[in-house]
Amino acid sequence: MPSDFPPNAAALAVSTVRALTADAVEQAQSGHPGSPMGFAEVAVELWTRHLRHDPKDPSWLGRDRVVLSAGHASMLLYCMLHFSGYGVSLDDLRAFRQWGSKTPGHPEVGLTPGVETTTGPLGQGISNAVGMALASKMKEARFGEPFRDVRVFAIVSDGDMQEGVSAEASSLAGHLGLGNLVVLYDDNQITIEGRTSLAWSEDVGKRYEAYGWSVQSIDGHNAVQAQMALENALAETARPSLILCRTVIGRGAPNLQGTADSHGAPLGKAEVAATKVAMGFDPEKSFVVPESVYELFRHRGEELAEERASWQVRFEGWQKSNVVLAEGLEALQEKRVPKDLFDRLLEGLPDKDDPTRSISGVLQQKVASLVPSLVGGSADLAPSTKTLIKGSGSISHGHFEGRNLHFGIREHAMGAICNGLALSGGFIPYGSTFLIFSDYFRPAIRLSGLMRQQCLWIFTHDSIFVGEDGPTHQPIEQVWSLRMVPNLYVVRPADALEVAAAWTMALERRHGPTALVLTRQKVPAKLPRDPRFDPRDVLRGAYTVRDAKGGTPEVVIVATGSEVGLALGAQAALQAEGCAVRVVSAPCLERFAEQPTDYANQVIPPWTRTVSIEAGRTGPWRGVLGKDTLTIGLDYFGKSAPEQVLAEKFGLTVEAVTERVRSWLKAR
Amino acid sequence: MPSDFPPNAAALAVSTVRALTADAVEQAQSGHPGSPMGFAEVAVELWTRHLRHDPKDPSWLGRDRVVLSAGHASMLLYCMLHFSGYGVSLDDLRAFRQWGSKTPGHPEVGLTPGVETTTGPLGQGISNAVGMALASKMKEARFGEPFRDVRVFAIVSDGDMQEGVSAEASSLAGHLGLGNLVVLYDDNQITIEGRTSLAWSEDVGKRYEAYGWSVQSIDGHNAVQAQMALENALAETARPSLILCRTVIGRGAPNLQGTADSHGAPLGKAEVAATKVAMGFDPEKSFVVPESVYELFRHRGEELAEERASWQVRFEGWQKSNVVLAEGLEALQEKRVPKDLFDRLLEGLPDKDDPTRSISGVLQQKVASLVPSLVGGSADLAPSTKTLIKGSGSISHGHFEGRNLHFGIREHAMGAICNGLALSGGFIPYGSTFLIFSDYFRPAIRLSGLMRQQCLWIFTHDSIFVGEDGPTHQPIEQVWSLRMVPNLYVVRPADALEVAAAWTMALERRHGPTALVLTRQKVPAKLPRDPRFDPRDVLRGAYTVRDAKGGTPEVVIVATGSEVGLALGAQAALQAEGCAVRVVSAPCLERFAEQPTDYANQVIPPWTRTVSIEAGRTGPWRGVLGKDTLTIGLDYFGKSAPEQVLAEKFGLTVEAVTERVRSWLKAR
Repeated sequence: MPSDFPPNAAALAVSTVRALTADAVEQAQSGHPGSPMGFAEVAVELWTRHLRHDPKDPSWLGRDRVVLSAGHASMLLYCMLHFSGYGVSLDDLRAFRQWGSKTPGHPEVGLTPGVETTTGPLGQGISNAVGMALASKMKEARFGEPFRDVRVFAIVSDGDMQEGVSAEASSLAGHLGLGNLVVLYDDNQITIEGRTSLAWSEDVGKRYEAYGWSVQSIDGHNAVQAQMALENALAETARPSLILCRTVIGRGAPNLQGTADSHGAPLGKAEVAATKVAMGFDPEKSFVVPESVYELFRHRGEELAEERASWQVRFEGWQKSNVVLAEGLEALQEKRVPKDLFDRLLEGLPDKDDPTRSISGVLQQKVASLVPSLVGGSADLAPSTKTLIKGSGSISHGHFEGRNLHFGIREHAMGAICNGLALSGGFIPYGSTFLIFSDYFRPAIRLSGLMRQQCLWIFTHDSIFVGEDGPTHQPIEQVWSLRMVPNLYVVRPADALEVAAAWTMALERRHGPTALVLTRQKVPAKLPRDPRFDPRDVLRGAYTVRDAKGGTPEVVIVATGSEVGLALGAQAALQAEGCAVRVVSAPCLERFAEQPTDYANQVIPPWTRTVSIEAGRTGPWRGVLGKDTLTIGLDYFGKSAPEQVLAEKFGLTVEAVTERVRSWLKAR
Repeated sequence: MPSDFPPNAAALAVSTVRALTADAVEQAQSGHPGSPMGFAEVAVELWTRHLRHDPKDPSWLGRDRVVLSAGHASMLLYCMLHFSGYGVSLDDLRAFRQWGSKTPGHPEVGLTPGVETTTGPLGQGISNAVGMALASKMKEARFGEPFRDVRVFAIVSDGDMQEGVSAEASSLAGHLGLGNLVVLYDDNQITIEGRTSLAWSEDVGKRYEAYGWSVQSIDGHNAVQAQMALENALAETARPSLILCRTVIGRGAPNLQGTADSHGAPLGKAEVAATKVAMGFDPEKSFVVPESVYELFRHRGEELAEERASWQVRFEGWQKSNVVLAEGLEALQEKRVPKDLFDRLLEGLPDKDDPTRSISGVLQQKVASLVPSLVGGSADLAPSTKTLIKGSGSISHGHFEGRNLHFGIREHAMGAICNGLALSGGFIPYGSTFLIFSDYFRPAIRLSGLMRQQCLWIFTHDSIFVGEDGPTHQPIEQVWSLRMVPNLYVVRPADALEVAAAWTMALERRHGPTALVLTRQKVPAKLPRDPRFDPRDVLRGAYTVRDAKGGTPEVVIVATGSEVGLALGAQAALQAEGCAVRVVSAPCLERFAEQPTDYANQVIPPWTRTVSIEAGRTGPWRGVLGKDTLTIGLDYFGKSAPEQVLAEKFGLTVEAVTERVRSWLKAR
């Protein structure tokens, strides 16, 4: 704030954060007062002097972003949004943690204007912030001016610093030299079990120096120190910055500050009153904001309006002198995907028998040429997952113009960084690894579903047919576990055409993530489909590949991915014996569940017997097809051996499958 | 080795490791030659001079342990086991990665003598090693002499160091001052995508210093440096040690060493021959071990036999002079559980309406008093998960006699460390957190299932009834995702008696992990069960709580945990309307699936209509109960609001459930 501003306005804002937080948590009888109260000074300093944003246009391209990685400190963010003039009213604060409010327990993107990402699961927010800082660098490298100097701030807690995902993301941020990232660490030394020293004695600053970060330490209750540290951090553009802010949790609550009791429960009526009295507030009144606090933020708002106006002038000038780039930016921001993507992918489909990962790798090149928003990489498995965008560079320190990311052996950070890239706008990120390692970043996958972000998770080596690497590398439960995540599409294609459909579904699905599940081993380039087959039916999630002789099946075999080939083999054998068998491929059950009943009943008539074949957990297939379905798969861990041997030992050959269906039909 | 030993025997052993590795990978046409070839010097040094073990008794209590965290380097370990005289023959090496062999792609505990844990998923092994080092310290604190100076060595790769789980575990190891842990880092600067510098430029040594470790750097091809570093590390007993060994991947392969091409694929016939020629081996011969290599290891074996004999004498002396302690050690090592545990827990069950987490916290005290092997803790949520063992101390630096662990906000390390504790023998570890955060350590949970270890995963806050914390904290897909993990029991109890059964199942299940799934919110202390109810039926996984009037149900409602109360409410309402309803509680579907068909059909007669109620994903319930089951639950994310409001909004009140069952019955 300017030197002529009432000197106590900022201090009053700090006290107001404390009072509002105590009030809101007390009213909800639920929530976390400690962190917002302890971090109020730094937050007020950040919002009133450094952060560049536009409360009237929360989606301003040139804005800085703040990520509250310590999502439980949501009241801190809600107070700042309220003071700054986002659409968060005092009544919204009163409705903290209530049904339908804009102020849920943890911040939720899309629900509250000014909230950049959904946080709460610790370590995710800081890692999203790395993705956002990376996105800014990548946009600056592509478009220059409009993204010059766009910064990302993250407010993090002890928990964020202890979680492995933040270690992974921070190491990568240091490696890439994300100088536009500033992390403010609320080092209050208190966690739920008590003092952090119960489980934590490392030198966090030294660790971040080892990652290549710039590190400063301050007293988090000293606004001048906060100001200087933020200025230093913003002046440092070659390295990300960490500011360790030593604070007292629950600061301002006379009896509870500095204790774990102020962390996650209401302070209690008496302590709330005592807190207010100690700060010179009227203990009888709740949800009060002194006018000078609004004034302080209004004043900052005027400065920001000027900055925004000046950016706008520069931006429009840039647009005029960079017509092609500006058009590119528009396409990127819209995450534009050609309407005829599927048709284009169907032109010149790969026609060689190959693993679906390889087919996908080929089609991905075409997708990348048609969809500039597509960027991504692998957790050190690109040569195996086939996810490199050819002819495009790798992102590295000082080089952000490429489209290929190298996440290192850091799946969890990959997931959270992709979420950050998606949230930044403009990018459709993909992250790839072996399917078994999807387990390493379930929390990030879940958040992509919860936040409805268009992320692509490309998983290869999708079954026991991984072979020799053995049970640690052979997915059994992963496909079904992923199908359990709400809002996530799971697509397991069977041949080149289905891979094209998988990419199409993933790219056309704007408001949700898609997992592509691909084989290590070869599949036929082209399933032998019925002549009347319409390729668009693949996009319906399940369809008849080859109908029963005569069109009235006695049994329907439903399979996915590499097991569709087994189903077709069994069909041929059984039909030769006079049994009418239909084979249905079901690359995406989530999409199939959205089809009209007519279509679903036509593909899998409710009155027929059904068999499922998928080289993984079987139980839920009975939920899809009926309890009396014959389910063929694996409900136990695999073994180390060549894939052909495993197929024989585990009964996943055409002969074994045929025999199982045959005897099951007979037994009934 | 002694100074009078043929000076080239160790060098020859190193070359032999390289040749055997090249041969085995070539023969299998699959595997990872690079790491074993690059790390041979350090391994030979470790095994021939420092490691204390007994090949004739792989389960010797006083042995050091080696964890090959870089599981893909399995040939390195298999060579050492072969040379040392474990039951791994040359023929076993020839059968590398084949069906039924003792030499699978990645080391598997229980399959190969001398293998201490199953590795492959990166970051897990080093974290298991932290658990093993901790176990040694805990045993030393309890029993003294027999566990004095028992050390744990871990051989780790770049991937292990990049994974977040190792960062979490290493931070905790430093905090606890695990001076008996030595980590040997194969710093070969090559990963699958190429040079590590693509994604990795941090100062690993400095990072580990920040964790409080002792750090040394050596040339990993210099045996003298390796010897000195190991000696220093073993002399350092207050801090864990990291030795950074700079190596050349694939060392010895003239054309491929130092490249990513030597990492994960056969070298090729010509390169294998060239490697042998360069080392002075006959390129025409495969799987050759020079006699002097065996001699070298035999010589070490003699030294070890003496050490073992001397330990045995000391141990027997200790047993004699510490009769009570020795009896305690025996009980611990057997992981003894009273045969009448269930009956004892049923005596004086808590009779207050409480959350199942609280009931579990009470019963856990009794279990702890009866089962000395039980140790564990929480990822900073013990006050919420109620998992503290009262009257027992906390483990901390220099204090290892307690039973309570504080893992910090590090779920993944918690999982992997618990696996290490279980593998060490003697301990039945538990790790606890909110159910939603089970996602943070799925890879470790999976490994507990794969390794059939008796780990308890205690998950509380098990549904949307978490309430105000909102969707980031409300499990939806977690229960079913856990049920997908092979070998894992998932137990979701409904009242105090079922909590007692849950603990009993978990404790009596010696060869596999159990997840306890507990509520945040209150449940009735005691379900109103039929008079003829037999408590032991709860141990069968599912049973009739209250039968239909007349005993012949028109509909069976199956529910778990807190939703059994809803089912009973709906039963009362529907029976008042003349509909015969049975309520079945199904705390453990895995156990129920193991029951004889008779019992299963008696509990849920196949001819009745069925309804499932569980506040989570519904689909797989149709797999259990039949496609035409009415499934009541949630297939979308939750919301932030008080639990009562959520119950109404999401139709999980008695009224709403009753109405859904009523109209479903009518519609049919």
